[in-house]
Amino acid sequence: MKELFPICRSITGNGVRQTLKILQRHAPINIFEVATETKAFDWVVPKEWNIKDAYILDPQGNKIVDFKKSNLHVVGYSIPINKEITLPELNEHLYSLPNQPEAVPYVTSYFAENWGFCITHKQRAKLKDGVYKVFIDSELKNGFLTFGEIIIPGLSKKEIFLSTYVCHPSMANNELSGPVVTTFLVKWILTKKRRYTYRIIFIPETIGAITYLSRNIDVMKNAIVAGFNISCVGDEKNYSYVSSRNGDTYADKIAQYVFESLGQNFTRYSYLDRGSDERQYNSPGIDLPVVSISRSKYGTYPEYHTSFDNLTLVTPKGLSDSHELLKNILEVIECNYRYQNTCLCEPQLGKRGLYPTISSKGSVASKAKLIIDFLAYADGSNDLLDISNKIKVPVNELYSLAEKLLEEKLITALE
Amino acid sequence: MKELFPICRSITGNGVRQTLKILQRHAPINIFEVATETKAFDWVVPKEWNIKDAYILDPQGNKIVDFKKSNLHVVGYSIPINKEITLPELNEHLYSLPNQPEAVPYVTSYFAENWGFCITHKQRAKLKDGVYKVFIDSELKNGFLTFGEIIIPGLSKKEIFLSTYVCHPSMANNELSGPVVTTFLVKWILTKKRRYTYRIIFIPETIGAITYLSRNIDVMKNAIVAGFNISCVGDEKNYSYVSSRNGDTYADKIAQYVFESLGQNFTRYSYLDRGSDERQYNSPGIDLPVVSISRSKYGTYPEYHTSFDNLTLVTPKGLSDSHELLKNILEVIECNYRYQNTCLCEPQLGKRGLYPTISSKGSVASKAKLIIDFLAYADGSNDLLDISNKIKVPVNELYSLAEKLLEEKLITALE
Amino acid sequence: MKELFPICRSITGNGVRQTLKILQRHAPINIFEVATETKAFDWVVPKEWNIKDAYILDPQGNKIVDFKKSNLHVVGYSIPINKEITLPELNEHLYSLPNQPEAVPYVTSYFAENWGFCITHKQRAKLKDGVYKVFIDSELKNGFLTFGEIIIPGLSKKEIFLSTYVCHPSMANNELSGPVVTTFLVKWILTKKRRYTYRIIFIPETIGAITYLSRNIDVMKNAIVAGFNISCVGDEKNYSYVSSRNGDTYADKIAQYVFESLGQNFTRYSYLDRGSDERQYNSPGIDLPVVSISRSKYGTYPEYHTSFDNLTLVTPKGLSDSHELLKNILEVIECNYRYQNTCLCEPQLGKRGLYPTISSKGSVASKAKLIIDFLAYADGSNDLLDISNKIKVPVNELYSLAEKLLEEKLITALE
Repeated sequence: MKELFPICRSITGNGVRQTLKILQRHAPINIFEVATETKAFDWVVPKEWNIKDAYILDPQGNKIVDFKKSNLHVVGYSIPINKEITLPELNEHLYSLPNQPEAVPYVTSYFAENWGFCITHKQRAKLKDGVYKVFIDSELKNGFLTFGEIIIPGLSKKEIFLSTYVCHPSMANNELSGPVVTTFLVKWILTKKRRYTYRIIFIPETIGAITYLSRNIDVMKNAIVAGFNISCVGDEKNYSYVSSRNGDTYADKIAQYVFESLGQNFTRYSYLDRGSDERQYNSPGIDLPVVSISRSKYGTYPEYHTSFDNLTLVTPKGLSDSHELLKNILEVIECNYRYQNTCLCEPQLGKRGLYPTISSKGSVASKAKLIIDFLAYADGSNDLLDISNKIKVPVNELYSLAEKLLEEKLITALE
Repeated sequence: MKELFPICRSITGNGVRQTLKILQRHAPINIFEVATETKAFDWVVPKEWNIKDAYILDPQGNKIVDFKKSNLHVVGYSIPINKEITLPELNEHLYSLPNQPEAVPYVTSYFAENWGFCITHKQRAKLKDGVYKVFIDSELKNGFLTFGEIIIPGLSKKEIFLSTYVCHPSMANNELSGPVVTTFLVKWILTKKRRYTYRIIFIPETIGAITYLSRNIDVMKNAIVAGFNISCVGDEKNYSYVSSRNGDTYADKIAQYVFESLGQNFTRYSYLDRGSDERQYNSPGIDLPVVSISRSKYGTYPEYHTSFDNLTLVTPKGLSDSHELLKNILEVIECNYRYQNTCLCEPQLGKRGLYPTISSKGSVASKAKLIIDFLAYADGSNDLLDISNKIKVPVNELYSLAEKLLEEKLITALE
Repeated sequence: MKELFPICRSITGNGVRQTLKILQRHAPINIFEVATETKAFDWVVPKEWNIKDAYILDPQGNKIVDFKKSNLHVVGYSIPINKEITLPELNEHLYSLPNQPEAVPYVTSYFAENWGFCITHKQRAKLKDGVYKVFIDSELKNGFLTFGEIIIPGLSKKEIFLSTYVCHPSMANNELSGPVVTTFLVKWILTKKRRYTYRIIFIPETIGAITYLSRNIDVMKNAIVAGFNISCVGDEKNYSYVSSRNGDTYADKIAQYVFESLGQNFTRYSYLDRGSDERQYNSPGIDLPVVSISRSKYGTYPEYHTSFDNLTLVTPKGLSDSHELLKNILEVIECNYRYQNTCLCEPQLGKRGLYPTISSKGSVASKAKLIIDFLAYADGSNDLLDISNKIKVPVNELYSLAEKLLEEKLITALE
């Protein structure tokens, strides 16, 4: 996080490349480049933007705003500029937050050529009339949109999909937390025996998701059983999730189960409250079963999209707990088979040592009761979460039972 | 209303013809005649009934009951009579309402030959013993059942169906209000660009609906998307509607939406509370998507089926408001398309001037948010009412947005 | 009951044969014998067990426990034994209930060879050190599992299934009440005109049900529309029923309707509370629509599986009321047709004398209203219970109406 934080990322450019290269030290992420003007559904890949320096000199020649101190000071995708202007002219290109006078806001202008600076409202209030020099040493050229992808094969070609974005400059929760936690999820997934194949992408938001989907949607539609958009997972506040478009996908089922079963306080946001790449993944015709997982959701916390979203807000504990939660989600999916009983009527559990041989009043021990209840609902239509719900026993108390019944060949696991 | 009110209508006869001819001055209604004895499912068209005069003379020769003063005084379909009878004999043919002693009731005997007079209970109580002369100059003969129909073509062969009845003598709400309001709806529909074809009928209740269905059900079953039985729409009380048999048709959806969205107080009656031609339209095997629309529903207001259901109860405002409400219902149906997004993922709204070019904290203006929410649910399965419900924005705020998105070719409207 | 009570029944052996022979005096039950070692799904038919005598002599030679006084004193399926043992050794083969010190418990060891005695905890507490003689004159040999079956043909090959068990020694509610009440149900069914075929079986619990299913499941799956496991129907406490696996079968619908319509206090137990042969009938792959009907359900009353479950607990009134209730259930099924209207639109009820000929305010009498409401929902999809529910009239008020409408050929009854 500390190494990645200062890098000036945007939806294209060297900041993204540099970020992905640092993440590659921890996980074998493949890097892809898509050329400017490439069509992606209704969009085209924009020009690549890079920036070396930018500042404002006040009438006295003092450097009052300096890109080198914080890349948030420059509006993303600003065109090059080098001229002297009056304060009223400057003001048309300044962005500040009257309600958060100490914060530098995060502003972009990706799809209309423009330039600007972001400063605290407090600083802005003190600017005096005079001639200011504005200087932005940026470049907009035909180049590439860069993204990372890793496909980790599993026993099945069915896929779990994870998506996070790498296009935000120096802000910590939204959005360095997503790529960082996701990279460490990749490390962990690589160590596991996997039922599912994993498709994990590190993309610029919106245009990156759209570009990726335009190249992969056919495969993804057939393969993905559940997907999670990972964003704002570094603070220590309550979890939240944004439901899918109709709120009824397998990803919703899993997310809600995990939050509820952990006794976590969490907020279920309606799809109307969406704002990140779940917008694309759930759009009609795309229809992927994707929800977004966050701590404090983007847009809901005061530091959001300002210089206050920094390494004070994001903590090792926040990152680590989110990592655990996401592991938990993946573990539940991996274990959540539908089961089918193998013999008609109840099997004779006694001969397998699973039933008391002496039958007396109240003698059906809770273990045997659990087995026959499990078998009663192992009818090929219920998955482990359904069985758990029907027999009112938590899923984590059923894992070893399912293993035992598989060993005894009393059930089979359906793909 | 004033011209139509005095006419003696019944399920057949010149009163219906005269009524339809007056309505023809306002709308090009076609008049049909179906001969007596024509089979209509389990029924046959009855003899045609006409009446010229009827009265009762008291023992002193005073005309105490006179058809010419109010046609309600004669039981509908009374056979001719001309004789002198005692008070006890007369009483067997008198109808009055002990609980509404000042009201003349409305009574008929369509399918069993009989005769009778209707008087106020107050008058009846004063009758003294003696010989009364009863005289009814009526005629029951092979003739015709008369009804009106107008088919107004639209872009689609799918139909909206409106039905109202023209068989009640001098009563205003039940039922001159229905035919009158419906006639002015026809005038209005003729001026509109129409998506749907309109089938509008003016029929005698029950036997007219059955006769009409027996001749048209095959076409109607394929064509009608929603139908409204219009009755008792002339008073100023709350609206009400009688649901379809299972309460789940498109007509129910539209009616409930319009009442709810207008913030109208209204009563939703169960199909068990039906009593008009919705009985036939919803019967098993007919199964048309028809609900009944009323102000005070038939049977629920004290003036119902008495001489008090007159032009005091029905007001210009009552008629006019009902007309507006029914126009509103038709306008909602006309506009209520299912929409399909045309490009995968969100479209690039910015290049169409529909999205802010500068992205800063909280910058997704409500207009842009509305567009992306609309597009998210324009998946071909949701109609405008569904979208309105899902994104929690009233339909009338979505009309112009839908127009805009159609223009931009971001959605198509599905038939 | 009195004659059957003393017999020593078990899952095999002469006690079952003797019991079925006594029941044959009242109903023509067929008796079947299935040989030891016959496979039945995951099980095999066990050896046949018979017992002549058993007792314990105390150190002084007193017969302190005597099978001839109560067959509950011997653990079911005890192997033969004849030896002298110390009290500690004896104690390993004694069963008693510390919480019910005056009760002799009911204990079995069907599937593991063992022997034992059951005594009151009070008696056990008084046993003194010394040498005891234990004697069991039993026999375990290749033989047969015995069960009874009667198929009573009806107009349809579709079947109602009744199951009860005959494997419990001297206990009255669980389980002599089931076979006894069921036998008298057979007597009654034989006197009735039957729409359905009846399959009624008297079996040993669990192994009997499994054996029976293994021989008959294919026929049963196609034929059975509803089944009832009858157990513990002899006391006078509230009724209870154990739902089917998913709680949504036709048997659930009927049982719930009958309990609710009789205004009976009853307990609906979840399938998780099952414990008798509904376990087998509902198991995945078997999937028969079977529920269990009881008064005090097995396992819920203190006398259960002890010597206190005797002819004091079970009463003539308890047995008779249960018999009535079960007859009621069968009568509802027999009458519960789906009905289809025969003519489009409402029929002309007037010409059939079913509608008032004079139509005046409020004149649609409740009888006519009932007819048109019935016809409105006689659409081929609703059965009598559905119609009852929709038109809010109890089923028993609809029987004669349905008969009348069938006579008038206004409806047909669908199989």
